[in-house]
Amino acid sequence: MGPATRYLDITEPFLLYRGEKLPGLRLAWECWGKLDQKKSNAILIFTGLSPGAHAASSERDPEPGWWEEMIGPGKPIDTDRFFVLCVNSLGSCMGTTGPASINPETGKPWRLSFPELAIEDLARATRLVVEHLEIEKLHAVIGPSMGGLTAMAWLKLFPMSAERVALISTACSATPFAIAIRSLQREAIVTDRNFKNGQYTEDDWPEVGMRLARKLGMITYRSAKEWSQRFGRRRQDYFPATLFGMRFEVESYLETHARKFVGQFDPCCYLYLSRAMDLFDACDSDESLKALFARSFTGHALVLGVETDILFPLQQQQDLARALESTGSEVSYHALPSVQGHDAFLVDFERFGPPIAEWLE
Amino acid sequence: MGPATRYLDITEPFLLYRGEKLPGLRLAWECWGKLDQKKSNAILIFTGLSPGAHAASSERDPEPGWWEEMIGPGKPIDTDRFFVLCVNSLGSCMGTTGPASINPETGKPWRLSFPELAIEDLARATRLVVEHLEIEKLHAVIGPSMGGLTAMAWLKLFPMSAERVALISTACSATPFAIAIRSLQREAIVTDRNFKNGQYTEDDWPEVGMRLARKLGMITYRSAKEWSQRFGRRRQDYFPATLFGMRFEVESYLETHARKFVGQFDPCCYLYLSRAMDLFDACDSDESLKALFARSFTGHALVLGVETDILFPLQQQQDLARALESTGSEVSYHALPSVQGHDAFLVDFERFGPPIAEWLE
Repeated sequence: MGPATRYLDITEPFLLYRGEKLPGLRLAWECWGKLDQKKSNAILIFTGLSPGAHAASSERDPEPGWWEEMIGPGKPIDTDRFFVLCVNSLGSCMGTTGPASINPETGKPWRLSFPELAIEDLARATRLVVEHLEIEKLHAVIGPSMGGLTAMAWLKLFPMSAERVALISTACSATPFAIAIRSLQREAIVTDRNFKNGQYTEDDWPEVGMRLARKLGMITYRSAKEWSQRFGRRRQDYFPATLFGMRFEVESYLETHARKFVGQFDPCCYLYLSRAMDLFDACDSDESLKALFARSFTGHALVLGVETDILFPLQQQQDLARALESTGSEVSYHALPSVQGHDAFLVDFERFGPPIAEWLE
Repeated sequence: MGPATRYLDITEPFLLYRGEKLPGLRLAWECWGKLDQKKSNAILIFTGLSPGAHAASSERDPEPGWWEEMIGPGKPIDTDRFFVLCVNSLGSCMGTTGPASINPETGKPWRLSFPELAIEDLARATRLVVEHLEIEKLHAVIGPSMGGLTAMAWLKLFPMSAERVALISTACSATPFAIAIRSLQREAIVTDRNFKNGQYTEDDWPEVGMRLARKLGMITYRSAKEWSQRFGRRRQDYFPATLFGMRFEVESYLETHARKFVGQFDPCCYLYLSRAMDLFDACDSDESLKALFARSFTGHALVLGVETDILFPLQQQQDLARALESTGSEVSYHALPSVQGHDAFLVDFERFGPPIAEWLE
């Protein structure tokens, strides 16, 4: 949360996709650019699992955002033309209600008493901000990674509410490989001696589990090819080398990332969002992907994938593009040769920028 | 260890590759078939990280071995023709001396006081059994996975001592991706609350860390493609389903494997062998791979790799085959389309059997 964060407080109960309810919620969001008179130039960006609403810097908050090179005046998502909106996901811990928030009924953090979350809930909570801004139809919805799942949940729940949709390094549901990875990340967290069934404290943080989860995340977010080029078998001399500690550069790289992440993200929020990603299936109502797109979208779709992505492999973006095409939608599909794997959309702007700019032209 | 295990006890000090020494050692081994009069029909099999010397059943031990379908009368490694030898690796815990053994000088298990191991030490310890049997030249050396590293260490240390060599799903050194995976496995073990810097007890076993390490192992031993076909998104009903516990079949599959492994392998042995794999580099003496093969081998080499292997990717077997070919050796190279990833050599006998049988003909 920073100086540009805005908040929307909902005091009515919020019914969740799986039947439980929240007594109310707070949504943290940011926006860039100006909404035009007809409110027809709004672009909604859904985030991946860990980023918050601060997708880009602004006058009010000069701190670079998680998609800084993508959003701004003259950038691929051009804030001179568009009103860009990003909401911290329900269940996260960057201003929006989630397991780390205080349950108003008990005065204590929700932690594991938070009801089970579905990706559909993230879409519905975000909808409240869009309605608050009285935007009826979005110019575009953009979703990378988990954000792509949320974008699909959005289409499912609010058909024909976006003129364009961009599904980036995402899928209609997770592969068993991705489920296995996330299952291990969660196991590392819940078995941490400090996790204490969700009753961890600031002084005894489940740091070991969060570090393991983050490192395993990094292994699947990047690619073996990138690391062979970037680190090879070079030794590290940044941390003291111990027998089973760090010897190689790839190990100190993971360590540095893990240390940075530990304090930034709440373990319970991580668990809830991670599990929601496993459970999401755009076709869980037994509606085929084609039928879902046919009833929910007629505009211009952009589907981007990366050859080296092991978490959301290219085949999954091909499937999305094919299903969209089969409904008669205009589809721009790009299989990008980035070496950075799943994370490429966060770093390889040279490859991701142009197709996004072109699609919005 | 079973009724067919034989032991060789060495009472002299054993000098290790990195300069330390063991006061002596015990080697557990098994053999099948008959050594011919000239002792010219011996095949030495090096194992992967976790299997012991029991590679196949025999009259003395009818329990199926880890390569049961590969070794036996009329099988690809035909014990009617060959004398087959398999030694439990130095550093392991299935009869051979390792960190789980008693240090004779203290009367207590070595655990973390065991000296650092190199793959070269595994080759040199195995050599003691070969010398004990008075075999001067091996008909063949076969090494899958870690066993392939040991086979290369063997060539490095004992040039021209094998007429044939088979390098299976292996490499001349580990990729940074493989190092990262093993680094995480080790971190999961050493951060387990019961690990206690190696002072774990039977009653408080570092089970959580071993389970995580094994599950992460399984993720990299098999392939995403196999799991998509085998499990898809099917739910499991074998274990009680909890919010962050097991919901999907792929999760209960990993759980079953992890439970089986926990009691079977010593955590410290795992750490030492795992690190030795990272550190091994066939070219660490600044000798190129080509130069190494040129001075150590002139026979018929077999190199097998699997398209879906992410731990020892196909490129690494291609590199081995190319280096061997460049020395003028006869090389049979097969890139197998098995879906089972790195573990395919343990399960896909339909694909692995014929090239091995052919190479030995």
